[in-house]
Amino acid sequence: MATTTRTPADVCRAAKAASRPLAALPAGVKDAALTAIADALLLRRDEILEANARDLDAGRAADIGSALLDRLTLTPERIAGMAEGVRQVAALPDPVGEVLDGGRLDNGLRVERVRVPLGVVAVVYEARPNVTIDAAALALKSGNAIVLRGSSTALHSNAILAAVAAEAAEGAGVPAGAISLVSGGGREELAELATQEGVVDLIIPRGGEGLKNALKGVATVPVIFAASGVCHVYVDASADLDAAREIILNAKTQRPGVCNAAETLLVHSSVAATFLPDALGALDAADVELRVDARTRAAAGDGAPALLDATDEDWGTEYLDLILTVGVVDSVAEAIEHVVTYGSGHSDAILTEDLASADAFVAGVDSAAVYVNASTRFTDGAEFGMGAEIGISTQKLHARGPIGLRELCTYKYVVQGAGHVRP
Amino acid sequence: MATTTRTPADVCRAAKAASRPLAALPAGVKDAALTAIADALLLRRDEILEANARDLDAGRAADIGSALLDRLTLTPERIAGMAEGVRQVAALPDPVGEVLDGGRLDNGLRVERVRVPLGVVAVVYEARPNVTIDAAALALKSGNAIVLRGSSTALHSNAILAAVAAEAAEGAGVPAGAISLVSGGGREELAELATQEGVVDLIIPRGGEGLKNALKGVATVPVIFAASGVCHVYVDASADLDAAREIILNAKTQRPGVCNAAETLLVHSSVAATFLPDALGALDAADVELRVDARTRAAAGDGAPALLDATDEDWGTEYLDLILTVGVVDSVAEAIEHVVTYGSGHSDAILTEDLASADAFVAGVDSAAVYVNASTRFTDGAEFGMGAEIGISTQKLHARGPIGLRELCTYKYVVQGAGHVRP
Repeated sequence: MATTTRTPADVCRAAKAASRPLAALPAGVKDAALTAIADALLLRRDEILEANARDLDAGRAADIGSALLDRLTLTPERIAGMAEGVRQVAALPDPVGEVLDGGRLDNGLRVERVRVPLGVVAVVYEARPNVTIDAAALALKSGNAIVLRGSSTALHSNAILAAVAAEAAEGAGVPAGAISLVSGGGREELAELATQEGVVDLIIPRGGEGLKNALKGVATVPVIFAASGVCHVYVDASADLDAAREIILNAKTQRPGVCNAAETLLVHSSVAATFLPDALGALDAADVELRVDARTRAAAGDGAPALLDATDEDWGTEYLDLILTVGVVDSVAEAIEHVVTYGSGHSDAILTEDLASADAFVAGVDSAAVYVNASTRFTDGAEFGMGAEIGISTQKLHARGPIGLRELCTYKYVVQGAGHVRP
Repeated sequence: MATTTRTPADVCRAAKAASRPLAALPAGVKDAALTAIADALLLRRDEILEANARDLDAGRAADIGSALLDRLTLTPERIAGMAEGVRQVAALPDPVGEVLDGGRLDNGLRVERVRVPLGVVAVVYEARPNVTIDAAALALKSGNAIVLRGSSTALHSNAILAAVAAEAAEGAGVPAGAISLVSGGGREELAELATQEGVVDLIIPRGGEGLKNALKGVATVPVIFAASGVCHVYVDASADLDAAREIILNAKTQRPGVCNAAETLLVHSSVAATFLPDALGALDAADVELRVDARTRAAAGDGAPALLDATDEDWGTEYLDLILTVGVVDSVAEAIEHVVTYGSGHSDAILTEDLASADAFVAGVDSAAVYVNASTRFTDGAEFGMGAEIGISTQKLHARGPIGLRELCTYKYVVQGAGHVRP
């Protein structure tokens, strides 16, 4: 796998050429290739760690900060985790060739809708080198060629990981060019990748708003953007308040830095005085900064922890941190209005024992995932039983929610006749 | 329905507001509204014909040509046909609320993927006023608000049709703003429509390449482009040659001006001398102009009709006319290569009695519809049993092939727990 002398356009064309035989590979060959990749990751662990050490040295020299360094770091355990992830993908059912629906028409024509790979998928991502392997495994299993474009921070780590995966896959019968890396380069290279219309079938950016905006301006290839997650938990008048406290604690604090963590708690006014003192205390004890409206402050009572005033901007902010906005509403309808106005269409929950409230919330909140009596933290490919995911889409077209193997595919109509002509 | 004083942005915002109650409308209300629209078209026929006469007068004065005038013309029969089409849409099953898949996870969480409307769909179209009604009916049935943008040529016809539909629908309980027309205006107005991100969920252009290119340059809203149809019929070595002659005649001549008509005939060399003289004679007798390669000319024999030499450009051209390119190939693999190189991914057929050839063609040709032993002319929502369509997509994302009711929808995950938190 030579990456240094080829332009992104060259790499994409090679991926396109590989995508045709790849789409027809039997599941057994793909699964054997995935197993070979998992084995190679363990066998070539020292090479991988060595390359990673070079990136870490460069990162320290460039003072990229401890959070980024941590995300960049590979360890024997993390490599073993990547290999295990690849084996899990191998164990998933092959999405390709599944007949989605179909049958025989009145005129005798047999029409079937069959799932087929998209072709060439590009994934653009930031520091984490494990994405190189996760994305390559999902692409291979779904019969797609993949073009990976990592960040310069992880240059050496991504290069060795992509080489390990590509070589192992080729050794198991996968066409050359099926797994490639476009490394380094700046915005020009990204633009070249994003304008390979007719060659690249889909770009999935995994990264911050800067990356998304950079793509938005130039991409002619279809892009699935993972928008931010401004997720809500609404505690209805009839909610089980003990369960509600545990759910908001889980949704906010179990892993605050991810898109399905809650950013806003809404509470029905009839239970505000009962629920809020206890809940706010528990959140404060978990180091959550609370930004509240006037009614929440009033309901919080005398023993309340420190409360800040929520600004209008707060309600629409994805904190990705231990910060929560809290508001009081007078009805399910008002809660829905709040979610529709300030939410990002990711994951929103109602906690209620009332069927009509649950139905109204589920119908009225048009988000990728709508929850009744559960934490928003479950929006995840693995949690939803899809195996693994390459990201979470808040778009409405093609894929909504977790992007797993099925979502990396399209379909075609296969029509069989016996000399049929249209009258 | 006031359209004159409102900007496209105003109209889209009103459609967005309507889209929320519309998404929750029961099937019975939507179907009653569709029936009311069909009735109103017949009741208000004279008004519609009067408005159409004004467009026709203006069209004649502007010398728009007889083909365009014909497409613009409404007659009592055409209006009755539109009403009948609306009744057929009413009779289709409601796509909204269908559970696509789902079940209970090991942890007890119940996860269902439920089909829901996209929200606001904009359809941009050229002369034919019947699109106003067809598109409005499909949008209403699928629970979407629709913003229609017709051409200035059909200004009065579209205005009365949209008003008839909107008024009848509102009378039957559909929220105001669900069916609106943005009339007249130029490229600026189109650009305003195409940049209503977060308000308009999808734009579907129905028209020529000029319209598509105009949208491509400006749209920030997702667009499903119906690409051109460069469709192939390949006659394999083992084909039933009598059936093959009828199929290519049907695919080319039954309605040459549509996207699923064939533009290229490929013939296996082993049957070229047997098949081509007869087939070319039949095509010539049907007034088809033949543009051929050297091997076709050689196989055509002495009594051949007039044959032109096909240029390289010819092989990739959508004629939409009685013109056919004809070539000879030596294998299924070569036929597949030709289709992949010159085709547009719309509809391509193999005619063969050999299972391995059929399988190779179906696997190797990545088009929206791949046919075995049938005419390409069947790629159509109604023919495929989807009821009706708003266009045919050659994109791979979201909708491929006919865009019917299902394709105007997205889905959301509905998750029900009993106090579930993520461990």
